[in-house]
Amino acid sequence: MSDYPVSPRNRIKRVGKRGSYDRATVHAILDSALMCHVAYVLDGQPYCTPTIHWREGETLYWHGSSASRMLRAQEQGARVCLTVSHLDGLVLARSGFNHSVNYRSAMVFGTAHLVEDPAEQERALLAITQRFYPGRNEELRPMTTQEIKATTVIAMGIEEAAAKIRAANVGDDEEDGHLPVWAGVIPVSTVIGTPQPSPVLPKHTPLPAHLAAYEPGRRLDAALQETQAIYEKG
Amino acid sequence: MSDYPVSPRNRIKRVGKRGSYDRATVHAILDSALMCHVAYVLDGQPYCTPTIHWREGETLYWHGSSASRMLRAQEQGARVCLTVSHLDGLVLARSGFNHSVNYRSAMVFGTAHLVEDPAEQERALLAITQRFYPGRNEELRPMTTQEIKATTVIAMGIEEAAAKIRAANVGDDEEDGHLPVWAGVIPVSTVIGTPQPSPVLPKHTPLPAHLAAYEPGRRLDAALQETQAIYEKG
Repeated sequence: MSDYPVSPRNRIKRVGKRGSYDRATVHAILDSALMCHVAYVLDGQPYCTPTIHWREGETLYWHGSSASRMLRAQEQGARVCLTVSHLDGLVLARSGFNHSVNYRSAMVFGTAHLVEDPAEQERALLAITQRFYPGRNEELRPMTTQEIKATTVIAMGIEEAAAKIRAANVGDDEEDGHLPVWAGVIPVSTVIGTPQPSPVLPKHTPLPAHLAAYEPGRRLDAALQETQAIYEKG
Repeated sequence: MSDYPVSPRNRIKRVGKRGSYDRATVHAILDSALMCHVAYVLDGQPYCTPTIHWREGETLYWHGSSASRMLRAQEQGARVCLTVSHLDGLVLARSGFNHSVNYRSAMVFGTAHLVEDPAEQERALLAITQRFYPGRNEELRPMTTQEIKATTVIAMGIEEAAAKIRAANVGDDEEDGHLPVWAGVIPVSTVIGTPQPSPVLPKHTPLPAHLAAYEPGRRLDAALQETQAIYEKG
């Protein structure tokens, strides 16, 4: 895959060695997360709204209530910046200045638009369940017309994007290396816990095979990358 | 503490029962996170930039290189929306429509400005280390004049804010309750791992007492709330 084009909008300005325009790198960061933050402008005011996203090739989707302020503001072709960030560690240095964090982030720029075609909208709504829980749709009751009407789907082609990654131990100044205060990385990760069944679940309803990726104790980013790969295989 | 004022900017539009303008609720969500996303506008284009934030009362701070595009755009009094989100669980329902996530998010609105006064800037730079690692500054070498010059600190008074929380099991439609597909919550949490010492650390440098909150296996949000409380006590 080629790199994303670079413009003043997505050019990495600071610490260039951490930056990348590589599509596979950007995709992996996006696919490893369930939630993103979407920045958009409404009457000159910026908003930063968390939402669930999913990706098909070079298109990102998000959705919500048809009454949502964010979605109504975006459906007419709003400029959007969608960002996904993973915190991977706290980096403690021998100087305040060299403290940092390990992270993986992707910023994506594009123009949001409403998915208007009813067939395309229904396909997108099926995709969100299928992408996170491949095979689950076959076990669910069908969507109702009212549910489809109540939901707005936004799509955005990725025009430009940039990834930024810090994945290293501490970068102390050489002359600080002898100072006798602990320095290093405290890793952090987002992990899956033990499933909590619905209180109205018929007794002995087993955990289905389509949830196998979400094994308790596993990293969520790994599970999400795995389900995306299964989804892409179809 | 009183609620934040409500305007069209921060009014909760959707699923009002999940929303709150309570200051303590907003503070707890902000203080439980190391990273936020900041939305701002530059030449009509929205940007959504992840960064580290810290809070003192009703003021939020973030910082970075003096060459940062984000900070240069914000230091002249830019409107900003700063959002913190915690993902707490995947919510699986008997219908695609009722799938959801458990989360805690806080959106904060204000006007960013540069911390210009050198004494206030130095105090803020000491505060960032002290807030996350209370007591650590006493063990570090002093900041250099060059390090202070190279760093820009942005402050923003919280003008308006809103929290939104979903912390519940699945909300299936009553008539779907009998369907024999697993439904419930798969919890997720961000946890602390085993510290990785710097490869250039003098041998036998112990983990200091000021890192006690970051015990391996503990939830990061709990550790960050604890260090904020220690920091506030002074």
